[in-house]
Amino acid sequence: MIDLNCDMGESFGRYRIGQDEAIFPFITSANIACGFHAGDPLVMRRAVRLAKQNGVAVGAHPGFPDLVGFGRREMNIDPEQLYCDLLYQIGALQAIAASEGVKLQHVKPHGALYNKANRDARTAEAVVQAISDLDRTLALYTLPTGPLYELARQKGLRVVREFFADRTYQTDGTLTPRTAPNALISDAREAARRVVRMLRENRVETVDGSEIQMEAETVCIHGDEPSAAAFAREIRRRLEEAGVVVKAIGSG
Amino acid sequence: MIDLNCDMGESFGRYRIGQDEAIFPFITSANIACGFHAGDPLVMRRAVRLAKQNGVAVGAHPGFPDLVGFGRREMNIDPEQLYCDLLYQIGALQAIAASEGVKLQHVKPHGALYNKANRDARTAEAVVQAISDLDRTLALYTLPTGPLYELARQKGLRVVREFFADRTYQTDGTLTPRTAPNALISDAREAARRVVRMLRENRVETVDGSEIQMEAETVCIHGDEPSAAAFAREIRRRLEEAGVVVKAIGSG
Amino acid sequence: MIDLNCDMGESFGRYRIGQDEAIFPFITSANIACGFHAGDPLVMRRAVRLAKQNGVAVGAHPGFPDLVGFGRREMNIDPEQLYCDLLYQIGALQAIAASEGVKLQHVKPHGALYNKANRDARTAEAVVQAISDLDRTLALYTLPTGPLYELARQKGLRVVREFFADRTYQTDGTLTPRTAPNALISDAREAARRVVRMLRENRVETVDGSEIQMEAETVCIHGDEPSAAAFAREIRRRLEEAGVVVKAIGSG
Amino acid sequence: MIDLNCDMGESFGRYRIGQDEAIFPFITSANIACGFHAGDPLVMRRAVRLAKQNGVAVGAHPGFPDLVGFGRREMNIDPEQLYCDLLYQIGALQAIAASEGVKLQHVKPHGALYNKANRDARTAEAVVQAISDLDRTLALYTLPTGPLYELARQKGLRVVREFFADRTYQTDGTLTPRTAPNALISDAREAARRVVRMLRENRVETVDGSEIQMEAETVCIHGDEPSAAAFAREIRRRLEEAGVVVKAIGSG
Repeated sequence: MIDLNCDMGESFGRYRIGQDEAIFPFITSANIACGFHAGDPLVMRRAVRLAKQNGVAVGAHPGFPDLVGFGRREMNIDPEQLYCDLLYQIGALQAIAASEGVKLQHVKPHGALYNKANRDARTAEAVVQAISDLDRTLALYTLPTGPLYELARQKGLRVVREFFADRTYQTDGTLTPRTAPNALISDAREAARRVVRMLRENRVETVDGSEIQMEAETVCIHGDEPSAAAFAREIRRRLEEAGVVVKAIGSG
Repeated sequence: MIDLNCDMGESFGRYRIGQDEAIFPFITSANIACGFHAGDPLVMRRAVRLAKQNGVAVGAHPGFPDLVGFGRREMNIDPEQLYCDLLYQIGALQAIAASEGVKLQHVKPHGALYNKANRDARTAEAVVQAISDLDRTLALYTLPTGPLYELARQKGLRVVREFFADRTYQTDGTLTPRTAPNALISDAREAARRVVRMLRENRVETVDGSEIQMEAETVCIHGDEPSAAAFAREIRRRLEEAGVVVKAIGSG
Repeated sequence: MIDLNCDMGESFGRYRIGQDEAIFPFITSANIACGFHAGDPLVMRRAVRLAKQNGVAVGAHPGFPDLVGFGRREMNIDPEQLYCDLLYQIGALQAIAASEGVKLQHVKPHGALYNKANRDARTAEAVVQAISDLDRTLALYTLPTGPLYELARQKGLRVVREFFADRTYQTDGTLTPRTAPNALISDAREAARRVVRMLRENRVETVDGSEIQMEAETVCIHGDEPSAAAFAREIRRRLEEAGVVVKAIGSG
Repeated sequence: MIDLNCDMGESFGRYRIGQDEAIFPFITSANIACGFHAGDPLVMRRAVRLAKQNGVAVGAHPGFPDLVGFGRREMNIDPEQLYCDLLYQIGALQAIAASEGVKLQHVKPHGALYNKANRDARTAEAVVQAISDLDRTLALYTLPTGPLYELARQKGLRVVREFFADRTYQTDGTLTPRTAPNALISDAREAARRVVRMLRENRVETVDGSEIQMEAETVCIHGDEPSAAAFAREIRRRLEEAGVVVKAIGSG
């Protein structure tokens, strides 16, 4: 059984990113941008509606306040400010979802914030505390190791470990940087094969040919490549053919 | 019996506006800016905490997305976008308040949005619909006449009519523009006298010496003049001396 | 002889709008967004470089400070603030252009600012004054009638009248609103025919079948439709076939 | 002979920071914020006008695009983007200054950008390159050591070394962090004494009682403390009493 998550609602005003309509039919959880690094209130509602129509669970995808950098530039934000920034973004999406009768399932930090929270204890703490103080039924999507995972577990949050289907891993368990060759897996068949193996054997091959252990409850696919919709359709089909039940993790 | 409301949480980053600490002890409801025209997530939390410490009810004070113009410049925003902008702002504050165990009492549109909603039916409709879809226990603070008041009543929202203690009125019931002489009432004793008369006789004198009818459940005072705290303390003292019960309108 | 202008550099961060690379070879003047309604500093430099490579003249395309609304929402900006906003935007592009050895040829207000300046005298005055105080060699692109045109002429600015090749006109000389049917002309052959007739006979047919007088030194084409590059190539080809010399208006 | 510089024009919309009117009479060079971390176009013009009225030289004070963080949070900006951000900000101020007949004297990076440029070679390079490509008559204000100073010298820019009159130094020549005790010097007499000694003997005492060598052509004072104007008046008076000629460094 696996959840298939994808970043959604990343458009802004007249600017379009992603192929939300084409990808929603194939995923089970949507990480919706909350206006700081991408997304605007109207875009957010559009994404929530599409999620609802497609039976896809909705999560908040908060990021650094950096639209021009798409939340991919690390910022030295004070943890207390970050904590408030997170509440603000998650709450904004909660209200938009509530107006459509939808309750949030999860929170997944975006971009540079995701990376920093998975590396820096004080950042991880701000993330865990914000979810904990706001709504403890919200699941946290995170890497399967590192301070964010450890702290969230320790605080009793529902933690959902994430596997990247279209990215390769290094021997230390981290993702191969996007700038490196072999960082991306563009063949959906190969990606599906890796997911199935991860699920059955808890193992994944690394870029240098060795293997590492890997457990995860959700698989992240990317939505901003031209081929993203085809990839999503294909990976879902192959997972189901392999007998994997593809469904959201649930909000409880 | 009357509610005393004031705009709060209007600072932004290192920028300070208002004297929140000094004014909170004397008011009963706080309209907290939500980050579009003023306020940032950390400032919002500080305002919520001060409200809680002072036993003051919390409301959302959403505005146009125009920080440099402080939400005072009219913008031609599509009602659907405005509706989403409102959900976004109210939700952001809801989450920050929730993290402090505080539930919102009301919504009061800010500045040019307040004026437009009290004049333009489509804008009024966006405001009423947003509150209605999000949380029907939220009261709406509005002028005692005009499309916003009428529509909110018609839709069954809890409507709280607002009287401006430190502003004069014209014969048609509108406020004297700030740019006119005699627009402001800076004497707290005179302001208190007008409030008491409005409560007892439902009447208020106009700038040209005539009288108009006026009913209201809340009194707005302004927090951004240097003398604002002294004014707040004085008007509250005088109202209580006159036997008026000063308390928030309640969220039910 | 005619100038062919198009809005360029409207991308922002990771967000892409327009097909700058594909359109630059066919135009003679580029209106480059300056960061308030679209564009960011890196995007602006990319656009300036493409202009230089293609021998296209560069102009500033300032707009209202409203990225989410793409500068298409009217804002009630004080003329003095607007004047400063214009200097700011034009200056920002001047510096980026200067770093590439390029001097600005013109200024063309964008979207809601263009419309307002062509209708409202105080807005027109802010535009004219900003150009006049900054650099009187900058030409102003404007509608061929209205307060902006009149005032700019009166103040001795170089005024370049604009004809819209892909839009239809109403009998009063204004453009048919985009929301109306028949607002757009998508056939480049028909658009070219209209330009040629305007140049030779100073006349253009209106949507209701009558004719109006029209004089213009530049023709605006739009760059944000999928077919924009094909349209640009085709209209240029047909204009040249008809013996029209297509060249920039020059900065002197 | 010494130049006295201070950050100016840091207000934003209705938000006020600093006491520009009160401080301008006592300084000789103003570092004017350019809208990314503080300042807006109208505020920038007001600052330029005050500078002109007081015979104070004008410089650009560009920062990271982070208004809520006042440019004090380090951001991981790509050097190429930073280079364009710098051109954009300097150009915006150049145009506003030009409209008042004022030519810029210098550039001084702000806050986290200043710190990063004085520490990181790639950031320093972006700063030096931007000035070099835009206008080589612009002086660069910088710490007297480090990659920014070295690179600017090497590229032949006019470099102006900066001494902080109201801050203490550590033995390695860096400023004592603001968070440490003894970081600030609030006594203008003591500050003046240190400046005079630095000028005469090229030496300054450090927090731990030792001494370091120090050469500088400009002295920075801060404008955002309540006592800033009194400090500015007092330090200037004492410097002049000590026979120091207080004047701007000049633009040539």
